Order: sequence, then structure tokens, then C-alpha cells
Amino acid sequence: MPTYKLILAYDGGKYAGWQRQPHATAVQNVLEAALVQIAGDEVRTTGSSRTDAGVHAFGQLVSLTLDKDMPGDALRRALNAVLPNDVFVRSAEIAPVDFDAIRATTGKRYRYVLRDGQERGIFDRRYAWHVRTPLDAAAMHAAGQALVGEHDFASFQSVGSERQSTVRTIYELSVRRGDAGLLAMPVAVSEPDAARGDLVAIEVAGNGFLYNMVRAIVGTLVEVGRGRRSVDWPREVLAARDRATAGQTAPPHGLFLLHVDATD
Amino acid sequence: MPTYKLILAYDGGKYAGWQRQPHATAVQNVLEAALVQIAGDEVRTTGSSRTDAGVHAFGQLVSLTLDKDMPGDALRRALNAVLPNDVFVRSAEIAPVDFDAIRATTGKRYRYVLRDGQERGIFDRRYAWHVRTPLDAAAMHAAGQALVGEHDFASFQSVGSERQSTVRTIYELSVRRGDAGLLAMPVAVSEPDAARGDLVAIEVAGNGFLYNMVRAIVGTLVEVGRGRRSVDWPREVLAARDRATAGQTAPPHGLFLLHVDATD
Repeated sequence: MPTYKLILAYDGGKYAGWQRQPHATAVQNVLEAALVQIAGDEVRTTGSSRTDAGVHAFGQLVSLTLDKDMPGDALRRALNAVLPNDVFVRSAEIAPVDFDAIRATTGKRYRYVLRDGQERGIFDRRYAWHVRTPLDAAAMHAAGQALVGEHDFASFQSVGSERQSTVRTIYELSVRRGDAGLLAMPVAVSEPDAARGDLVAIEVAGNGFLYNMVRAIVGTLVEVGRGRRSVDWPREVLAARDRATAGQTAPPHGLFLLHVDATD
Repeated sequence: MPTYKLILAYDGGKYAGWQRQPHATAVQNVLEAALVQIAGDEVRTTGSSRTDAGVHAFGQLVSLTLDKDMPGDALRRALNAVLPNDVFVRSAEIAPVDFDAIRATTGKRYRYVLRDGQERGIFDRRYAWHVRTPLDAAAMHAAGQALVGEHDFASFQSVGSERQSTVRTIYELSVRRGDAGLLAMPVAVSEPDAARGDLVAIEVAGNGFLYNMVRAIVGTLVEVGRGRRSVDWPREVLAARDRATAGQTAPPHGLFLLHVDATD
């Protein structure tokens, strides 16, 4: 009964999110259906991040236990042979028997991709939120630094969520302009000096995120980037601890779960 | 009755090519349907390049004449307001009354994007041909130089096409490795020094191309890149003037019409 640790990439465009659904197709349904083909029996999986409908992943962390004893790489290849072309197992390895993707998670890193300007992005339209107003990426970067550190992020949590504490720590938040290389993983070749380009990426790493927190941060920084709000505004939003003060929740299709930090 | 010159971008993924079809949806059908909404009457368009089903464009050149007199930019905005999100008019301007996109064409530039290696490209799967064998881009570049210049390209023409002459001139052919920045236009920020990355781009410019010529060149260079054929082989294929000697026709979804050179 080995336990496995998987790193999963997926295009969330046509899925009802990560989490298994009874009457819709979620990524977890697809992965578990592939596992049945390989293991024979029903296999239950645990995903670190409950990504919403339409959200993508380069590095979702998944744990599962199989009745069948097979090397990690054989499981990876077997899964990739049966998974649809929008879900891909990047790696699979045998983990300690008590490994659990949720308990093991110590932090997460997300990237949100925007396109600005009048030109419609024909080839990135599924992966970038198109904002017609030109965005000031440097102002967004400066404004976002107020969110770095340990704070009460109540202003950036969607209503309806029930978490015991709304305090989280953001380790790093960066905003930079670039080209379609921003849609590549691992860190794109084009990133270091990319000051031109039609795309803007917001990357944020932290010890945990409230429901819709990244998308609320993006919606807030976009208000600054458009020039509708000052660079100091996100600091005020944070201090207010009231969701009504922040910007809109950015749409899901620009969001990528890049990486999950985990302990073995 | 002004004549207009349009530069069109489209994702060819769900279209039966550029050319109008009676029982399928081609890009030309979609553009002409949008023009009816704007002009009221039926409008006939001419496209420079008859791109095949599944082939994409950043810069298709189109000519058309309207009964309605409107500034070029107003036409561009009106079209973009009604076109589906996978077809986009990059520019529209009033041209000389006898301007015709086919007659005006003096050359074309194409890019073909490949992904190599075991990793499936979740986010570029619609825009890159995935070849599992690692490709030697430098060998492909060296091999491709034999095709530059004026030659009889009969070996690179799909059977069934009827052209008077199979002599064409290739001005430039380059093969380089890069990241998803290769899917951006205009020339991507990441291009100059991108030696790493999971994608390989073959770019070819010439005064004209035979039916499936770019895709046959790509299929041939990929044989070199895989190490199945020597760097000298494309030169031999060219000299044979026989389609049976060349590599396979590469699939359409990696091909982009980048630019059409035209005279006014």
C-alpha cells in the first residue's frame, strides 16, 4: 500500500475546479478515473489546493495511496497515457506512508497573468485577463508591497468562507511586465529583464491564502494599475478589514497555482 | 466605395482554414458575416494566404470593398465588436481602389512552433507540435540553410496541387530554441538570447510557398533534429525534386502566418 506524492499540471478551463463534484467534471474526478484504470479499485486522492473552476495549475500537490506497488515513474507514465491532454502528471514519487498533501503544505505560490491595451490576445485569451486600460506595472508592484508580511487579510476574503483566522503571511509579491514567456514554467527564460510586452504577471507567495484572496488582491492592484486608485490604497484596504473596500475578484482564467511548498 | 486593407489575426483551431466553405466554418465566413452586420450588404473579401484548417495567423492580409464610407479605424473597431474572440482585426486602413490582397503580395513569413521532450505542454498544446524526442535546434538551423535561395521546391509540395512552377525563393530560414515567448507577436521580448526553453521555432520567409511547403520543410528538419537524418539530408531532398523523399507534413496546429509583405 505505497503512498505517492504527485505534482500535477492542468488547464482548468473546462473543469469545475480541483475538487471532486457529483454532477460536474472536476480535475480530481478525472485523476481518480485514470487511477481506477491503473489500479482497478477506487482510489481517493487529496489535493493541497482547492483551485476554483477555471483556475490552472503548474504545480498542484496531490497525495494518494495505491493497493498496487509500482515505482513512482511507472505510475507517472501510466497516468499520462490515460489522462486527457489538459491534465499532466509532472512527477510521481513514493512518499512516507502518512504523507498527506494538505497537512504537508507549508506555503503556496500563485501567478496571475493580465493582458492590457486594445489588442485582443488571440493566443493567450484563455490564460490572461484582458484589461483594456494600459496598466502601470511599477505602480502595482509598489502598491503590492504593503501586503507583504503577516497581516489580517479579511478585506481580501470572499464572503461565505468560514476560516478560523484571517491572518496570513505573504512572503513575496511582485508585478512585472513581459511577453507570453510568462505563461511558461519553470521560470521563463524571458523574465529577468522583460520590461516590454503585452502581458503583466502578478506573482505572490505565502504561507496560506483565504478563499479568493489572490483574485481579490489582483482586482485591487488592477485599480492602482489603471490609475483609478493611489499606490497607498491597498494599504488602506488591508487596514479596513472589510471585503467591501477592496477591488473586484479577478476572473479565474488568469490564475495559475505555480508551486506548493511541502514537507515530507 | 472605399477599398480597405486589413491585417487579421486568428486562432485557426476550430476553423476549416481561411477560405470560405459552403458547409463548414472558415475564417473568411466569419469575417464576411461580421461585415454583413456592419455594411448591411454582402461583402466579398480576398485573403493573401489560403491557410489550411487548423493553421493560425498573426498577420493575414485581407482586401475588401465596402458600399459604406467609414474611416479605417472605425471599421476595425466595429469588426472587433462583433467578431468571435478567436478572430481579431489588428489594423484596417483605406487602400487604393484597385488594392487586391493576392496581387499585392510579394512575400510571406511563417513561424512553426514545436515542443520537444517528455513533458506535455498543457498551455501550448493547441499551438505547438509535440515531438517527444529531444530536438537539436542548431543542427536543424544548419540543415535548413541549404533551402535558402531560389530553388525548385517540388520535393516540398503536397501532391494534388497544381502550380505552374515549383521554383520559389526562401530569403531566410532560422531555427531557435525558446520559451512560450515564441507564441507572442510582434517579435517576442525573449527571443534574442533564448537558448533554453521547451519550445523550438522554425521561421521561414520567402517570395511564395507551394501547397504545404512550410509543413513539409518542418517535417524534414525535424528528422534532422531527432538525429534520424544527417545535416546534409535536406539538401539531398531538395535536389531529388520528389515529394516522396522529404519528411512528413507537420501537423497544422504549430503553424502561424506571421506577416505578409505587400505593395500598395
